[in-house]
Amino acid sequence: MTRGEIYATDAEKLAVAAAEARAGADEGGIPIGAALFASDGTLLGSGHNRRVQDGDAAMHAETNAFHNAGRQRSYRDTVMVTTLSPCWYCSGLVRQFGIGRVVVGDDRSFLGGQDWLAENGVEVTVVNDPVLIAMMGEFIHEHPALWNEDIGED
Amino acid sequence: MTRGEIYATDAEKLAVAAAEARAGADEGGIPIGAALFASDGTLLGSGHNRRVQDGDAAMHAETNAFHNAGRQRSYRDTVMVTTLSPCWYCSGLVRQFGIGRVVVGDDRSFLGGQDWLAENGVEVTVVNDPVLIAMMGEFIHEHPALWNEDIGED
Repeated sequence: MTRGEIYATDAEKLAVAAAEARAGADEGGIPIGAALFASDGTLLGSGHNRRVQDGDAAMHAETNAFHNAGRQRSYRDTVMVTTLSPCWYCSGLVRQFGIGRVVVGDDRSFLGGQDWLAENGVEVTVVNDPVLIAMMGEFIHEHPALWNEDIGED
Repeated sequence: MTRGEIYATDAEKLAVAAAEARAGADEGGIPIGAALFASDGTLLGSGHNRRVQDGDAAMHAETNAFHNAGRQRSYRDTVMVTTLSPCWYCSGLVRQFGIGRVVVGDDRSFLGGQDWLAENGVEVTVVNDPVLIAMMGEFIHEHPALWNEDIGED
């Protein structure tokens, strides 16, 4: 994936987030990836969960993509694409910054605040890609303690 | 402020967040500070908004304090103290990770998701410290574009 390049379709955008998730897995981390795009499909920034790699509890996939996109004057026309349904933390990010649209690769393995976002005017598209569902399901099954830590479950 | 030291009272805890806000202002940044404490008042981590200093849109005061606290196994008994009412992004952080209590220094200059947190079982204490209200009010008056960027207002 290349920052500044155009990813026109939702499938192309989700492939960027999926590549980030796989990069995270390859690093031994939690396999969740995300990417933020401008309205014309230009990749503004992408990232993945960094809890294991950096010991960073604040870098979920969506917040890492947002961080990597740098300072933006407006998010109204941007699209956040994520391999997994955004948790409350990442849903709060979307709502506060007025990100206009969210594409979710998998809401079967985990359901975050996507309905709350839709109720508050965000366009939410759920893909439920079988490959992503299988990847996340397997991770949760094999690493329950790490997964619970990442979503703040005691 | 010293990580690992005990800050027993709300006033002592808020003083840590206020010192972070002043440190941010001294760096030319947005003057919002926050700190995360264990139930016995031990400071786990503190931080301040880093948009200007680091060009980092993801580091609000609360997320920076959370980041600086490192990986924690449970947040149930922790207290997030912030100089300014937490925006949706930072309120989402509190809800997702099950932070039990939030102390707000100022909800006059900005009102975030604190009522939503209270509705969802978080104990919210609002101090409305005149010094913090004056500091933030002055900043917003003098830097409206930067402030609007930080809260995602077009």
